[in-house]
Amino acid sequence: MSLITFLSDFGTSDSYVAEVKGVIATLAPAVSVVDITHQLPPGDIRSASHILGRAWHRFPAGTVHLVVVDPGVGGSRAAIAVESGGHRFVGPDNGVLTSAYHNAAPTVVEIPVPEGAAPTFHGRDLFAPAAARLALGEGIDWLGAPFQGEPVILKDPVAWYQGKAVIGEVLYIDRFGNLVTNLTEDLVPPYARLEVEDFDIGPVRRTFADVPVGDLLAYIGSGNTVEIAVRDGSASRRLGIGVGGRIRARLG
Amino acid sequence: MSLITFLSDFGTSDSYVAEVKGVIATLAPAVSVVDITHQLPPGDIRSASHILGRAWHRFPAGTVHLVVVDPGVGGSRAAIAVESGGHRFVGPDNGVLTSAYHNAAPTVVEIPVPEGAAPTFHGRDLFAPAAARLALGEGIDWLGAPFQGEPVILKDPVAWYQGKAVIGEVLYIDRFGNLVTNLTEDLVPPYARLEVEDFDIGPVRRTFADVPVGDLLAYIGSGNTVEIAVRDGSASRRLGIGVGGRIRARLG
Amino acid sequence: MSLITFLSDFGTSDSYVAEVKGVIATLAPAVSVVDITHQLPPGDIRSASHILGRAWHRFPAGTVHLVVVDPGVGGSRAAIAVESGGHRFVGPDNGVLTSAYHNAAPTVVEIPVPEGAAPTFHGRDLFAPAAARLALGEGIDWLGAPFQGEPVILKDPVAWYQGKAVIGEVLYIDRFGNLVTNLTEDLVPPYARLEVEDFDIGPVRRTFADVPVGDLLAYIGSGNTVEIAVRDGSASRRLGIGVGGRIRARLG
Repeated sequence: MSLITFLSDFGTSDSYVAEVKGVIATLAPAVSVVDITHQLPPGDIRSASHILGRAWHRFPAGTVHLVVVDPGVGGSRAAIAVESGGHRFVGPDNGVLTSAYHNAAPTVVEIPVPEGAAPTFHGRDLFAPAAARLALGEGIDWLGAPFQGEPVILKDPVAWYQGKAVIGEVLYIDRFGNLVTNLTEDLVPPYARLEVEDFDIGPVRRTFADVPVGDLLAYIGSGNTVEIAVRDGSASRRLGIGVGGRIRARLG
Repeated sequence: MSLITFLSDFGTSDSYVAEVKGVIATLAPAVSVVDITHQLPPGDIRSASHILGRAWHRFPAGTVHLVVVDPGVGGSRAAIAVESGGHRFVGPDNGVLTSAYHNAAPTVVEIPVPEGAAPTFHGRDLFAPAAARLALGEGIDWLGAPFQGEPVILKDPVAWYQGKAVIGEVLYIDRFGNLVTNLTEDLVPPYARLEVEDFDIGPVRRTFADVPVGDLLAYIGSGNTVEIAVRDGSASRRLGIGVGGRIRARLG
Repeated sequence: MSLITFLSDFGTSDSYVAEVKGVIATLAPAVSVVDITHQLPPGDIRSASHILGRAWHRFPAGTVHLVVVDPGVGGSRAAIAVESGGHRFVGPDNGVLTSAYHNAAPTVVEIPVPEGAAPTFHGRDLFAPAAARLALGEGIDWLGAPFQGEPVILKDPVAWYQGKAVIGEVLYIDRFGNLVTNLTEDLVPPYARLEVEDFDIGPVRRTFADVPVGDLLAYIGSGNTVEIAVRDGSASRRLGIGVGGRIRARLG
């Protein structure tokens, strides 16, 4: 018996999350479901992929990750299940499962659409039953035939050198207004200074408390890349930049 | 041992949901609680009833559904428990439990107010203990005497014919801005065209991907009635109509 | 095996809550986690303390309460665990655990920072493993040495007499716009009349239904202090006052 995690853009004000959980509770009464989030902006595949990439490997091996951010539901995109590194993933083949392909040889199968499934709610009628079956111990190859073709994999933007600086990009903004970038620790030596537009953010610090309240700071975030924050405030609001905004690590 | 589902208008920013769950965890430690939603607009009995109606039958027989949207708490409305179709429901007699009466002969009992119950928080002090007892296996008639009088049942508006058209109504708007109507599948033949005010929405489609991004479409939703959406957008915002707004299915 | 409750200001749109739950699921697979709330305004220690104070004692003895509202994360504030009245609490020593010290002789230990912990995410790397170990049955003194020094304890403002009135204060405003005050039941006799600025709220009522829809009322709330509400409305919006606003109980 495994855990199921559940990530969607359903919000929590409608019945959709509960309908999915009801299906799982009916098929697999002893299986627990842990919400990752349901608050993604509708159809935001890139943020879904980012969040899944941070969360899935914190769960124990064997966990089933149910991911339903699926603007193409009922259309031509495939419904797939992926087994990779001891974890199982179920969702649409639209890029949300990108972090599942961390493994050199993941197994990918295509899940057929069950008879009678609502064409606009595969989360409930296709993905939830598939996740329940995996959690109960079925092998991934019982869900469908090997997936033909290449699964959709999102590429994160790559940092690049410009003169004596590394140029990175904001990948994600969290509820605190912290800017998560693609600058990994190895790209930013201790003598580097971070800059966003005309703002000098200073060197990489250890934590918020290393600067006065209200000041901007850079630090290596809990996802192992540079983040920009305002201590007890919002860097997103202060700097007025969003996802895709540029950040410079000046090296000399 | 059964599952308890929990639906309320408590929101998730205060302690109220947790206080209810604490009471259940104390009385019935091995019972799981699954949230339906707590984000209903305060006192919105009609939406609560709609959401319960969609969700409850997805759960396994024996489930206890705890529903606390209760603007008349502590006043003259009765606190009741209903057994119907193998499910149990606990909540105020104000219409939120309408979908529990789908069965010809439901059992309805009135739950007395426990001594010391806070008059403004029956969710914690009356309904939660009642749900816990049912989940532990007590019969519904242990909770109280048969309910005297007629329980409050909400009527959905009925679609009607006007010339060569069926006129329906928006019952609910979800987080995506999709308009859920009362037009059931049998009222809308394949040659019908849907209209909202001056907008021609076209025939009933299968799913979002059947129209270009940004276009309006009608389809039979996962609750088996006509819904109006904008592909990758919000029909509610596009059309500027709310609950009670009219939709026409033109039949010729 | 105990339950873990989880209270934070992480919000529910990012991966942070799930990362914490993943760590717990890995270390203590059979332990259930119940969310108190994650919607606190970022860094709002006082509201966190208020909510914990209302919720914790509703849970069964032995419960572990994980509280992560931690603007000073990675800085000089200590990470602590408290055992008190049969419950265990884990969190930063910044006042959020104030209600844990209800007991004359609580045990307080300081939890050392694990090697490799992200300096900005002790919730995941320090507090979650500590909570998991307690839930699995470890004694609190296995987590660290006795805490040296005085834990931070927040004081609620005290009501005071001014002529023939008691002056209280708004401590908290809930999602309904109800004003929770520090006026305890014993301070407000049946003949008292409540006032906020120029508004006469009348005597203490039993419940909302005791006044017409849209009227202001005072009542003893489910937390045992005077609350001010508007029946089927928002007292906060009506009165335009916030936390710290004054309320008068006129005694003659």
